Amino acid sequence: MKLHILGCYAATPRTLTNPTSQVLEIKNHLFLIDCAEGTQVQLRKNKIKFSRITHIFISHLHGDHFFGLPGLISTFRLLGREKEMHIYGPKGIKEAITLLLKLGDSWTNYHLYFHELSSKESELVFEDDKVSVHTIPLNHRVYTNGFLFREKLDERKLNVDALDKYNIDKSQFRNIKKGQNIILENGELVPNSELTFDPKKPKSYAYCSDTAYMPEIVQQIAEVDVLYHESTFLESESHLANKTKHATAKEAAAVAGEAKVGQLILGHYSTRYKSIDLFKEEAQQIFPNVELADDGKVFEF
Amino acid sequence: MKLHILGCYAATPRTLTNPTSQVLEIKNHLFLIDCAEGTQVQLRKNKIKFSRITHIFISHLHGDHFFGLPGLISTFRLLGREKEMHIYGPKGIKEAITLLLKLGDSWTNYHLYFHELSSKESELVFEDDKVSVHTIPLNHRVYTNGFLFREKLDERKLNVDALDKYNIDKSQFRNIKKGQNIILENGELVPNSELTFDPKKPKSYAYCSDTAYMPEIVQQIAEVDVLYHESTFLESESHLANKTKHATAKEAAAVAGEAKVGQLILGHYSTRYKSIDLFKEEAQQIFPNVELADDGKVFEF
Repeated sequence: MKLHILGCYAATPRTLTNPTSQVLEIKNHLFLIDCAEGTQVQLRKNKIKFSRITHIFISHLHGDHFFGLPGLISTFRLLGREKEMHIYGPKGIKEAITLLLKLGDSWTNYHLYFHELSSKESELVFEDDKVSVHTIPLNHRVYTNGFLFREKLDERKLNVDALDKYNIDKSQFRNIKKGQNIILENGELVPNSELTFDPKKPKSYAYCSDTAYMPEIVQQIAEVDVLYHESTFLESESHLANKTKHATAKEAAAVAGEAKVGQLILGHYSTRYKSIDLFKEEAQQIFPNVELADDGKVFEF
Repeated sequence: MKLHILGCYAATPRTLTNPTSQVLEIKNHLFLIDCAEGTQVQLRKNKIKFSRITHIFISHLHGDHFFGLPGLISTFRLLGREKEMHIYGPKGIKEAITLLLKLGDSWTNYHLYFHELSSKESELVFEDDKVSVHTIPLNHRVYTNGFLFREKLDERKLNVDALDKYNIDKSQFRNIKKGQNIILENGELVPNSELTFDPKKPKSYAYCSDTAYMPEIVQQIAEVDVLYHESTFLESESHLANKTKHATAKEAAAVAGEAKVGQLILGHYSTRYKSIDLFKEEAQQIFPNVELADDGKVFEF
């Protein structure tokens, strides 16, 4: 699992910093999460292969998470894309994009599917044999969801030496990978645990931006490997965090601690602070394993 | 008169080039012309004072001329703008912007006025005592206007020595600047030409992008000081120019020549070419005074 931070600053694009967008590489998928103005240039700068993106997840319809989407959709058209594209986001996203395409008489020549979200409960929005994606309802000024990405448990790994020892035929391998025991021709039962190794533990990533401090999410994101949680402010500006429904670094760390996550990544920084290191210092007073997102940074889990 | 090129490449924002946006400084106005994705970052990089922009002119509703506008409007709100803003653009622009603001519950706290355009004839869209702006109807795939910016003739300049010689009272200066003759106490008539100098010749700038070759505009832009004319293609790709309703460098030069403009600036280049110098070479075969727009370039007239 690999996370590319394309932008992680709050509010507006600036000369050296970009508003929110990131790409999660998970089980051969390239999921785009949020799409602020400038995202397509950041995709180019970070050498991410555009054409492999087929699913875009939009947390909410504030410009700093969404205003790069119309341009990206248009660019896919200009690049001759034929593969379908799925967009998951709040109700209204379809009307907005459709209107912009209509005004420019610039309909896509690929299929564009909108999956509009309006539930206040967590929903399964995407699933295949390798990965599932659920919404994480958040608390912001407008309807907002985070997203929880979970790898599924792989098949069990074959123990080639054991298979050899019992002279087991290839035709059985598929069942053995699925966990079946084997009965040999002499009637002896060989338990699956002797024929296979455990698969790698599936990884999970929770993306939570934008939101006020929201302990209600702790249960859903419990023990995820990585939590990206917004920290627009420091505790010294908690009055602004309350007013604008954002979180402080301390609050992000509290959520990480309560949920016992493996690692916390902070982002969505207000540009009022001199150094983003201040966010890490504040968070680490509560939760030790903190990393700072920054534009262009890549995390491998 | 000063022209800041923020972006002048066709189609999509790329790592090193930006789609169309420019700022015209004219008689203390800062007019923003088109507003592609990335414009607000380009404004910052080019150190243009955001708050002085009060009039935005949008040629047409293709993304590479327009998708930076929602973000710019939002950023003005975040920066605490109070001064009103006027936006001139094709019918539909108000619905699009209003929908995006509504979805983000991000209404501006300054007055936003939309001046929607739908006429196929040239119209006066802005006028004060110093400047006028007319639309230039163009021929593109969607409804498109260029814009013709004209300084008004200044008042006549006072000849201080002559005023002294005839001992003319200050109370008369305002009338003299407007061209009035003076009758002295002894009944002698002093013609205005003896009391004043000619004001500077007013300047004019015509912005024509995007458009197919359109000789119909020659009359309207005749003898302007500066013509910015799109040249998306070279003549070798004239079939693409015809198909997409764009112009070639040769066609832009033909318009400049027929209109006897002072200077031609080319822009809106397709990124398929190795060097934009090719556009200049092709245009200069027909019209000598050609300059190439490029991102970050400033022209002073």
